[in-house]
Amino acid sequence: MTSSQLFDPQIALTLLHELRELTANEQGAQRVAWTETWRRARSWFESKLHDLPVEYHRDAAGNNWITLKGASDKTLILGSHLDSVPNGGWLDGALGVLAGYAILRHFALSESAPPVTIRLVDWADEEGARFGRSLFGSSAFAGTHSIAADRYRADRDGITLEEALAENGVDLNRIGDAAVERANACAYLELHIEQGPILEGLGLPLGAVLGTKGVERHAIIFHGQEAHSGSTPMAVRRDALAAASKLALEIRTIAGKHADAVCTMGSLKTFPGIVTAVVGRAEATLDQRDLDAGVLAQMYREAQEASQRFAHEERCSVEWSRIWNIEPVPFHPRLIELCEEAIRETVNPIGKAHRLPSGPLHDAAEVARLGIPTTMMFVQSLGGISHNKIEDTRESDLLLAVRAFHTLAEKTIAWILSEAL
Amino acid sequence: MTSSQLFDPQIALTLLHELRELTANEQGAQRVAWTETWRRARSWFESKLHDLPVEYHRDAAGNNWITLKGASDKTLILGSHLDSVPNGGWLDGALGVLAGYAILRHFALSESAPPVTIRLVDWADEEGARFGRSLFGSSAFAGTHSIAADRYRADRDGITLEEALAENGVDLNRIGDAAVERANACAYLELHIEQGPILEGLGLPLGAVLGTKGVERHAIIFHGQEAHSGSTPMAVRRDALAAASKLALEIRTIAGKHADAVCTMGSLKTFPGIVTAVVGRAEATLDQRDLDAGVLAQMYREAQEASQRFAHEERCSVEWSRIWNIEPVPFHPRLIELCEEAIRETVNPIGKAHRLPSGPLHDAAEVARLGIPTTMMFVQSLGGISHNKIEDTRESDLLLAVRAFHTLAEKTIAWILSEAL
Repeated sequence: MTSSQLFDPQIALTLLHELRELTANEQGAQRVAWTETWRRARSWFESKLHDLPVEYHRDAAGNNWITLKGASDKTLILGSHLDSVPNGGWLDGALGVLAGYAILRHFALSESAPPVTIRLVDWADEEGARFGRSLFGSSAFAGTHSIAADRYRADRDGITLEEALAENGVDLNRIGDAAVERANACAYLELHIEQGPILEGLGLPLGAVLGTKGVERHAIIFHGQEAHSGSTPMAVRRDALAAASKLALEIRTIAGKHADAVCTMGSLKTFPGIVTAVVGRAEATLDQRDLDAGVLAQMYREAQEASQRFAHEERCSVEWSRIWNIEPVPFHPRLIELCEEAIRETVNPIGKAHRLPSGPLHDAAEVARLGIPTTMMFVQSLGGISHNKIEDTRESDLLLAVRAFHTLAEKTIAWILSEAL
Repeated sequence: MTSSQLFDPQIALTLLHELRELTANEQGAQRVAWTETWRRARSWFESKLHDLPVEYHRDAAGNNWITLKGASDKTLILGSHLDSVPNGGWLDGALGVLAGYAILRHFALSESAPPVTIRLVDWADEEGARFGRSLFGSSAFAGTHSIAADRYRADRDGITLEEALAENGVDLNRIGDAAVERANACAYLELHIEQGPILEGLGLPLGAVLGTKGVERHAIIFHGQEAHSGSTPMAVRRDALAAASKLALEIRTIAGKHADAVCTMGSLKTFPGIVTAVVGRAEATLDQRDLDAGVLAQMYREAQEASQRFAHEERCSVEWSRIWNIEPVPFHPRLIELCEEAIRETVNPIGKAHRLPSGPLHDAAEVARLGIPTTMMFVQSLGGISHNKIEDTRESDLLLAVRAFHTLAEKTIAWILSEAL
């Protein structure tokens, strides 16, 4: 534990402040992937590597890899992303990269090489903010990329993803070559802000992440009959908004049967949408998430059944179309335990560390789907707010997080060595 | 009853077809007030007056008055409007004007002058389709016009109401002079399509109208808290859509306590309105109508209270702002009875005529508010549909309607003569 005691988490915080100065304006962080500001952030980060005995390069998908050779080729990967949403926060993604940097640097400046090889990855375009394709770099690494579907994605100015990649030296047709970076990977760890209110609600700085929730995302359209608001008796109406409203309320009951499940109607549009007409068509979106695939499937089925029932009650019809879905990705049981131990040892040796699923997706999900043992550590988000310039975490909690994440890295190295991986 | 038996309603139907040929395209009727097509309709109508012993002129608000002098100066006014919404139907407004024409013509071609003076009015801009100011001409007649508020109303091309009026020979500042047309008015009658499904539902061709419902029209905004759909537990959400959905359903209970009351949430908008965010703000409209001012006030109060309760339950706040309101306008009890008698005698001597309130507003409401004894007769609308090219009524019902309306005119003349009006 000696090296752990000497580890100084302060450098991560110092660099987070530097990065904020460099890439935020009054509206927040502007490190949108494949843009000038993002490239500036990555150049700045590269400048921090010059004095370290590490190799670094960009892979075929634009992910940046920094490698510190260890006594063994067995490899621990630490990672997150430097890109942000437009008008984003200073911590989302950047915390994980700079905490990883602090740990890599600590090992690099030690007298001897680490027992295993340690790599830090800055994934390209986790947010998908410009082209709507999130987890871009990590999906290329994991082989779950979708080149055909992504080729014609365009930003607001009509520039295609393919063109933007080319401008950044990435050939869309070759992004799958990033798979070579998987070699010898034995574990993946990621530190991230929670982006939700759970840890704050519990008064805890840190939590061990169980996995990323699966998502079922659908568009639901109720068809009723547009009618004059003044001349159409209540009893003969076919009010599409009434059917949609019932569903907006019922999804809370559906989610409420399960501890961590969530169901959200984020958008509801009414047509013709004028004060003097009964709503003839209501278009809703539904986003359902849970860590358990069975629970997710049940919630999806229950929402469909409820929508049919409400459509029938209101003499409307209903149609569903899937927008997107992803399976739940549970993290590695032993790494989750090690994460808990690291949190307990850092924060409160006699208490219990909190375990929680992640609602938002992370690059860690792509790595875990691939079969590489993975977990994440969350640090409390003030007000549960992220993707916003007011996104924040107490500096004392950030320091605790980087320290605990270093402890987790050490424990994971020991576990890699103890296992016949 | 002799003259009634000789009355031929067919001319009204013939003229309705002629007008449709002249002013409709594939999208429906295009007689929008203050436009070229509307002026063409009015010129065509004027051409039908040349062979009749009547005086006609346009008043200061653009209403057209045709006067058949009677033995007495006491005056019965028949009226409706030739203007339509864009892509409108062939009957809305035009039926009342051309039925009035058939009756006026019948009296004009009789051997002797009618016992009272009979006037037919074609109100200007009942629909308010171009400038959003409905009942324009009748409100000027009634003295409830709103020149200051209307002066800067503009159409989609930026042309102001004042400019469009000038183009049609009307000076906005002088529209109140239309009040001179009130002289000697003893009763006002209007035949109109129902624009709702009630008579069709009852299998009845005609109904006597009790008055126009009062309207309370409000914008209601629920403020909650935008939050990430994946990371925000159900229990801590402040979902503005949930509060709005509860209100969308509760207004049906509120309306359901009263026989003819209606409450409509015609528009609901969600913000930020994206699939991955709990709704932080929901903007709804509420339109409430009843013929009884007490009922209307009660419904408005109950909706406000319910919205406060739902906002509290969902830890949201709510704000109301009035868009528009109008008092209920009950029609004249004796004229409603005469209308029922005329319907019974025409359709079914042994049955009972149906009485119903009007949800939509009509020029008759402005006349009635002024204190002139008023009623309306409704004829069934197929499918309850209007303001649409598919607006329609069986021709046999139209003929019944014109015939019954003539009978009502005769009964009203007799009533005018019998009363010390």
